[in-house]
Amino acid sequence: MESIVVYDSKPSLKDPIFIECLPGIGNVGKETGDFLAGSLKAKKFATIYSKNFPSQAILDNENIIDMTNNQLWYSKDVNGRDVIFLIGAFQCSTHEGQFELCREIMSILLDYKISEIITLGGYGTGQMVEAPRVFGAVTDLKIKKEYAGYGVEFPPGEPSAGIIGASGVFLGLGKIYSVPSICLMGETSGYFVDHKSAMAVVKILIKKLGVELDLKELIDKSEQIDEITAKIKEVENRNCNCRDLGYIG
Amino acid sequence: MESIVVYDSKPSLKDPIFIECLPGIGNVGKETGDFLAGSLKAKKFATIYSKNFPSQAILDNENIIDMTNNQLWYSKDVNGRDVIFLIGAFQCSTHEGQFELCREIMSILLDYKISEIITLGGYGTGQMVEAPRVFGAVTDLKIKKEYAGYGVEFPPGEPSAGIIGASGVFLGLGKIYSVPSICLMGETSGYFVDHKSAMAVVKILIKKLGVELDLKELIDKSEQIDEITAKIKEVENRNCNCRDLGYIG
Amino acid sequence: MESIVVYDSKPSLKDPIFIECLPGIGNVGKETGDFLAGSLKAKKFATIYSKNFPSQAILDNENIIDMTNNQLWYSKDVNGRDVIFLIGAFQCSTHEGQFELCREIMSILLDYKISEIITLGGYGTGQMVEAPRVFGAVTDLKIKKEYAGYGVEFPPGEPSAGIIGASGVFLGLGKIYSVPSICLMGETSGYFVDHKSAMAVVKILIKKLGVELDLKELIDKSEQIDEITAKIKEVENRNCNCRDLGYIG
Amino acid sequence: MESIVVYDSKPSLKDPIFIECLPGIGNVGKETGDFLAGSLKAKKFATIYSKNFPSQAILDNENIIDMTNNQLWYSKDVNGRDVIFLIGAFQCSTHEGQFELCREIMSILLDYKISEIITLGGYGTGQMVEAPRVFGAVTDLKIKKEYAGYGVEFPPGEPSAGIIGASGVFLGLGKIYSVPSICLMGETSGYFVDHKSAMAVVKILIKKLGVELDLKELIDKSEQIDEITAKIKEVENRNCNCRDLGYIG
Repeated sequence: MESIVVYDSKPSLKDPIFIECLPGIGNVGKETGDFLAGSLKAKKFATIYSKNFPSQAILDNENIIDMTNNQLWYSKDVNGRDVIFLIGAFQCSTHEGQFELCREIMSILLDYKISEIITLGGYGTGQMVEAPRVFGAVTDLKIKKEYAGYGVEFPPGEPSAGIIGASGVFLGLGKIYSVPSICLMGETSGYFVDHKSAMAVVKILIKKLGVELDLKELIDKSEQIDEITAKIKEVENRNCNCRDLGYIG
Repeated sequence: MESIVVYDSKPSLKDPIFIECLPGIGNVGKETGDFLAGSLKAKKFATIYSKNFPSQAILDNENIIDMTNNQLWYSKDVNGRDVIFLIGAFQCSTHEGQFELCREIMSILLDYKISEIITLGGYGTGQMVEAPRVFGAVTDLKIKKEYAGYGVEFPPGEPSAGIIGASGVFLGLGKIYSVPSICLMGETSGYFVDHKSAMAVVKILIKKLGVELDLKELIDKSEQIDEITAKIKEVENRNCNCRDLGYIG
Repeated sequence: MESIVVYDSKPSLKDPIFIECLPGIGNVGKETGDFLAGSLKAKKFATIYSKNFPSQAILDNENIIDMTNNQLWYSKDVNGRDVIFLIGAFQCSTHEGQFELCREIMSILLDYKISEIITLGGYGTGQMVEAPRVFGAVTDLKIKKEYAGYGVEFPPGEPSAGIIGASGVFLGLGKIYSVPSICLMGETSGYFVDHKSAMAVVKILIKKLGVELDLKELIDKSEQIDEITAKIKEVENRNCNCRDLGYIG
Repeated sequence: MESIVVYDSKPSLKDPIFIECLPGIGNVGKETGDFLAGSLKAKKFATIYSKNFPSQAILDNENIIDMTNNQLWYSKDVNGRDVIFLIGAFQCSTHEGQFELCREIMSILLDYKISEIITLGGYGTGQMVEAPRVFGAVTDLKIKKEYAGYGVEFPPGEPSAGIIGASGVFLGLGKIYSVPSICLMGETSGYFVDHKSAMAVVKILIKKLGVELDLKELIDKSEQIDEITAKIKEVENRNCNCRDLGYIG
């Protein structure tokens, strides 16, 4: 184990579901995960330090530092099931580092006998998205069928470039170690932190976990996204008209 | 062993020939290998995952993923000899990774007591090739003589830049571990996936293995290559004429 | 241990304070550390060679070489406390190397049961600084309170980009291994070796260690900095006037 | 040991001198070493393959390949002393790799109880050199004095940028492991393979080893260098005159 893992506690968990919530396109994964872990009152139990993160100390507003890290949090008895979250503000910067670190974290998770892996991310479209869908990529047909029932869509072979980063690697490790796994990707322009896309993913996870959550915070932020989208569209339309007029005149 | 090797089975093989079929110039190696493994009804027996591949999950049309990998396939009793194929869509992206991964795969192959190594690749000419030849580089004079008998050509010291990638490293490891080895390079423009060049290499391997294979699929694809080549030549000729006329007029 | 550590001696030290003095912005850390180690008549006891430094032999004026390295020096009984200094002209060039090497040095320091870590650096402002302040980042509130008493300032969340290099990593390792730690950053333009900023940091360390030191050397060099600053200001003012006149005329 | 070392033999040697002869500026080190090893009828006894070389197979004129490597050669009883040469066409491409590989080779050499290290290189001046001098950098004053007696010059602190590559690292390892070591640098423009500079270094080594060698081959090649130098000077002079005239006219 090349990482330094500092445990706050070693909780006893029963066949937990593992949810990877690291930052990425539109920060959908991180926003979704942070909201969910917060709503489910998750507790941090391990901090993972690695040479594969930027070698940097980060300050809070009291100038208390911590080294760049990823963290494992847990929630017990979420409608009868335990959940482990991978939370953090950083991903590794090299392919080798990404693979090695995820593999080390996976070995911790396998000790916890995780029963399912859900990795979270954004599906970047490069254009404004009014009603973001949630796309999926899976390790087997059974889990695909289950999530299709929750409304996840599976456009054949998409994303065609594959899935990179921790979302891709944990999905791959799920395949390798025979843990049913899915990557949930919220549709997003990718141009800003996309709470609306995150809310779409949260709604899938609510169905999966069978819990009720207060979405007010996300709804408020989503409405801000709607306003931004509306303004951008307005500007685009105006520009279009001008140009059209130009062609006529 | 830094790689993760997942075995479907551990076949019992007798002094197998090892054929490396990874992608490269004109994709000649991969095309040749995929055709041969398919024709010889090879079976996958091991999947190799490595930090040295892009850390990425790849989707099929069902959105079932697998991590980037290389695979070992085998065919038993090919005219009395067993064959192991190294099949995949990826090569390592760094020199260090290439060396390390090939070395790890080689240690598996040495356990199988491989009796010969054939690595496959393209020999890029940068120009259209009408009748692609097959060039060779070897670990010793005995194997050179054998393959010269099958029609492989050995222009002295060519390719002068050496042989890079898995084709070069397995050839080198053959030398180091005293396994007679050859790299077969199909002549190719290198501008597209070159089935015609692959067919030239296949024909050498048919002689080597003493088998009969239905080449219809490759012949069809080669004819498409011929059509492309003809069209490019036509365009080139026309351009030349125009320019000539220009000089005159 | 991947480094080569050559010991001149293995001094017996009691709960030493560790001070990291490697080069960085305005070379404030190195200047501060070199002055302090010199004034406290520190002795070298270990030289650390690493693949993570530039692989280079460095010559002195007699053309006697040494490999690029970092060194551990110690001073016994500095007002009752022992001190270890990390001295050198090089830092690692990669994130991975920085983390790994600091971790290896930390394991030596933990064997010495260090009781506190002080890392030294510059806080680059990009503009001339007349009266450099000293900023701090810490691992806990207790050490923050102590150093605030010495005059260290803690502008909330600054530097917002975090602290990189050995200063950041040892601070982070202090956090990980529960050693109270502070990074002292002397305010500096960052445009030259800033002895004046170093003197500001030295003055904090004098209070911390409760020692009296002859600052004449630093005062002389600081006055040179003042002269440079004055000249630059003069030139800037003149240029401003010219431009202003240009706008009027 | 991360390298693959293939032994042809394990010669019994008595306190051998080690001479590093890898390529570099003006290829002075390689030319010197190849000439010396050839003249002293050295025999190859080990081939070193490493992930830190370009992962490439190299062909000879028979299309027989070998992997990129470095080699150890030996000469017994050179005027009473044994010599080991490090011969090759490649150096590592990264700092980390350079340090690691030299360290691995050094561990082989320490087993042979080498009594002295001589590393060879060029000292690039960027201008034509009529009578190349040989400069030195050493691990201690005693070896400096000895080589000064052979005519090696020691301009204080030069080269000021230090010595990079295997020449620098073996010198540094000599210092670390207390083996008296010198780097001999032939003065060279660095613009071409400089046999004349190599001959200057060879002449130092002839004195060191107390042997007589037939220098005809090097003298012939040096005269070619003289011709090139003369032509370049002629062209430069002519160009200078033209420009001067231009200024007048």
